[in-house]
Amino acid sequence: MKNSLLELMKKRRSIRDYNTRRKVTDSKLKQLFEIVKYTPSSYNLQPWEFIVVRSAKNKKRLRACANNQRHVEEASAVIIVIGTTQPGKIAEAVAEDRMKKGTMGKAKKASFDAAIARIGADRHRATIWTTKSTSLAAMSLMLAAQSMGMDSCPLEGFDAECVKKEFAIPSNYEVVMLITLGYRSKEPPERPMRFSYQQKVHSEMYSD
Amino acid sequence: MKNSLLELMKKRRSIRDYNTRRKVTDSKLKQLFEIVKYTPSSYNLQPWEFIVVRSAKNKKRLRACANNQRHVEEASAVIIVIGTTQPGKIAEAVAEDRMKKGTMGKAKKASFDAAIARIGADRHRATIWTTKSTSLAAMSLMLAAQSMGMDSCPLEGFDAECVKKEFAIPSNYEVVMLITLGYRSKEPPERPMRFSYQQKVHSEMYSD
Repeated sequence: MKNSLLELMKKRRSIRDYNTRRKVTDSKLKQLFEIVKYTPSSYNLQPWEFIVVRSAKNKKRLRACANNQRHVEEASAVIIVIGTTQPGKIAEAVAEDRMKKGTMGKAKKASFDAAIARIGADRHRATIWTTKSTSLAAMSLMLAAQSMGMDSCPLEGFDAECVKKEFAIPSNYEVVMLITLGYRSKEPPERPMRFSYQQKVHSEMYSD
Repeated sequence: MKNSLLELMKKRRSIRDYNTRRKVTDSKLKQLFEIVKYTPSSYNLQPWEFIVVRSAKNKKRLRACANNQRHVEEASAVIIVIGTTQPGKIAEAVAEDRMKKGTMGKAKKASFDAAIARIGADRHRATIWTTKSTSLAAMSLMLAAQSMGMDSCPLEGFDAECVKKEFAIPSNYEVVMLITLGYRSKEPPERPMRFSYQQKVHSEMYSD
């Protein structure tokens, strides 16, 4: 089986040792997010946003919110991946586009509006909702980085309140993930185990 | 910019019209999940599991739990993407592998065990936790399908309790997503709008 995505998935490793001299440029970032934007999302609402942190001072502040993990400071860039829990405003733009393209009529618009209102009305539901689509984008981001020869590492070990405070993130967002981004300085240790097909895939019905 | 992942992301569309005669074979499913398994996850716990639904009877039952969406019945396969909220048992296997490979000593093992216990202790926290890693795997799955010439569509509009009951999913799992899988019967309508780089990416700090 020759599959370039399989090769990409295998090449991607969670990298914690970065070449501190090799920088992630503006042009690379633009290319990266040009790939990420095609990620699918619930109602096409694209609830994700990204804060790109590259200054030494800000990486130090972010590291302090992230269990002092060294690669947060040493990676060329750290992406703070956030998701909105109040999609009302973006929903208007998305609905307008669909009505213009003729893929949303009056009945669809009414059920769309009702769904958006339901999401915004309950923070717990909204958090899970935004976490799903935003995590899809996070995976696209890591693969996009790899496809461009960059390395990355996803982090969940951080104090979200600290990150929100230090980076002026409004309260209606969730900090879903941090992703360090740069170029590996050495090969990572042997890849940790993966569970097998038999352990993960059930046929027709859940079975132990 | 020539980038094969970008091409793949663009080719991927959320497909709701499937060729009902073209089947997703066992061998394709094995290749698919061979790609998905390289998805990164929190503590490498790979909390995702998948139920592959292909029988006509079961797709009909699933459609009834999923707002009667036609493509759930018409796609060759539907993947029920679930995530565990009780990672204790899988954590043992993961820790054993890391200790064997020399990447987890006694101190790391203690903090790992404490982290696993914290996840399992709070259902709300565990739901968000499992949703993140499992959604990363869902994105890998859709891209893997596309890389193999298959089409897919993610669905969040379903009654999770209904899905759990009909497919015997234990209560300690969350139903994160459904993904229909098959081969498109016609081209989808024009791609809906995407927000621009300027609308989604902030530099150093959140800004309106």
